[in-house]
Amino acid sequence: MCQLLGMNCNVPTDICFSFSGFQARGGATDVHSDGWGIAFFEDRGCRVFLDPQPSASSPVAELVSRYPIRSMNVIAHIRKATQGSVRLENTHPFMRELWGRYWIFAHNGNLIDFAPALDGSFVPVGNTDSERAFCWLLQSLRQRFGDRRPDDAELFDVLHALTLSIAEHGEFNFLLSNGDCLFAHASTRLSYIVRQAPFAEAHLKDQDLTVDFREVTTENDRVAVIATLPLTDNETWTTMPAGSLWRFADGAALAQRPTRPGPARQPA
Amino acid sequence: MCQLLGMNCNVPTDICFSFSGFQARGGATDVHSDGWGIAFFEDRGCRVFLDPQPSASSPVAELVSRYPIRSMNVIAHIRKATQGSVRLENTHPFMRELWGRYWIFAHNGNLIDFAPALDGSFVPVGNTDSERAFCWLLQSLRQRFGDRRPDDAELFDVLHALTLSIAEHGEFNFLLSNGDCLFAHASTRLSYIVRQAPFAEAHLKDQDLTVDFREVTTENDRVAVIATLPLTDNETWTTMPAGSLWRFADGAALAQRPTRPGPARQPA
Repeated sequence: MCQLLGMNCNVPTDICFSFSGFQARGGATDVHSDGWGIAFFEDRGCRVFLDPQPSASSPVAELVSRYPIRSMNVIAHIRKATQGSVRLENTHPFMRELWGRYWIFAHNGNLIDFAPALDGSFVPVGNTDSERAFCWLLQSLRQRFGDRRPDDAELFDVLHALTLSIAEHGEFNFLLSNGDCLFAHASTRLSYIVRQAPFAEAHLKDQDLTVDFREVTTENDRVAVIATLPLTDNETWTTMPAGSLWRFADGAALAQRPTRPGPARQPA
Repeated sequence: MCQLLGMNCNVPTDICFSFSGFQARGGATDVHSDGWGIAFFEDRGCRVFLDPQPSASSPVAELVSRYPIRSMNVIAHIRKATQGSVRLENTHPFMRELWGRYWIFAHNGNLIDFAPALDGSFVPVGNTDSERAFCWLLQSLRQRFGDRRPDDAELFDVLHALTLSIAEHGEFNFLLSNGDCLFAHASTRLSYIVRQAPFAEAHLKDQDLTVDFREVTTENDRVAVIATLPLTDNETWTTMPAGSLWRFADGAALAQRPTRPGPARQPA
């Protein structure tokens, strides 16, 4: 199993604090040592840092944890390989371009017998179930909307149907962003927190590190952080129900829809 | 104008030495201070480091010059903006996926009135002439070969015809790689050197730095380095004739074809 970390904000924000705790899980405080990666959107541009080395000992991760890149949408992943060997081409997050925007995708889980027909518009470079799912998602979005870029509500509708279809094949926790908003699917395990005024102190679970957000924010800032497991031990994280797809924009959880049959479940 | 740097080898090689000299041209010894980027292929995987900051003062460039990433195909670029503002999405090199392989492209020059019809399969994210040319190249390759990945000789043929067509619009020095080989077009200015046994010392032009390649190579290593201007002052670089398209593989210049009318010109 892998670990996911996402951030969606209403102002460009650096992720150094959260990344420090997350990075420790890649080989130091946890076993996810088969590589890691992080993608930062900066307006329409996107920077992806990848390393097939464990994040806890990666010089690139060391840079990322110290170099404050300000972004409104970030997706990071540390890997414990299930399908696909430990190689750079199998390291998440993956990037493709659709409608003149970059799309970033990272997955935690395991898809069984997921072998959809691909039409050649998006073809996996590596051999993970994750990249295959990402290529099929983008192909399906393009088939559905053609060259017209849909608005976020339309996109959420179609993504919901596609997620239902893939989730039949197994565990499919994912984070997906086009730089405007961030979609998160809690298949089995995902939590989030929204930090906004009044800000307070936060203390990492995985390292003895505290930040006082009052010193680094303004009154209107709002930041959503999404992670496989809560990153801090003195804040209240919301557990996202197993089987729920979310859309985050401007640092808030704007939409949620169940991806499993049964009564609607609310966040704990 | 920008500066290009490429490397193609027969064994995975680090580019730290050449990059140190190249990096200095991004704001220290030269004026190309509108961002920089570098892409490393590692088997089928690819890592791209981008920074819209001048390379001479970029923490990411500092990491790249010290962290030995071993690669058989590298493309780097430092930018002096001509078309497109100084933003991350306009920072070279650009990446797309075609036929399940990543493709990397960087351009030095300026294309006038280049506005080809794009069918939506590859759409620029930024607003440079360079990314537009790259998208049109990949679209044209896909139109020509469909879902079948051609061999390198077929690819070189078609790329030659496409380069002729784009080069009508102006200065079009470029480096392009799919991780297997490296294509280089000298529209106006590009040089290369092939280092192989017997290896010797090399001294950078832009920094007082010397490396003794005898200490870091084996007898069978072969490395081609391609750059806008020679990077060392004690080696003999080959000036590539203005109007010539080259294919490098396994550290050697394997094919060359003129892209301007007139008598065939040989390398100086």
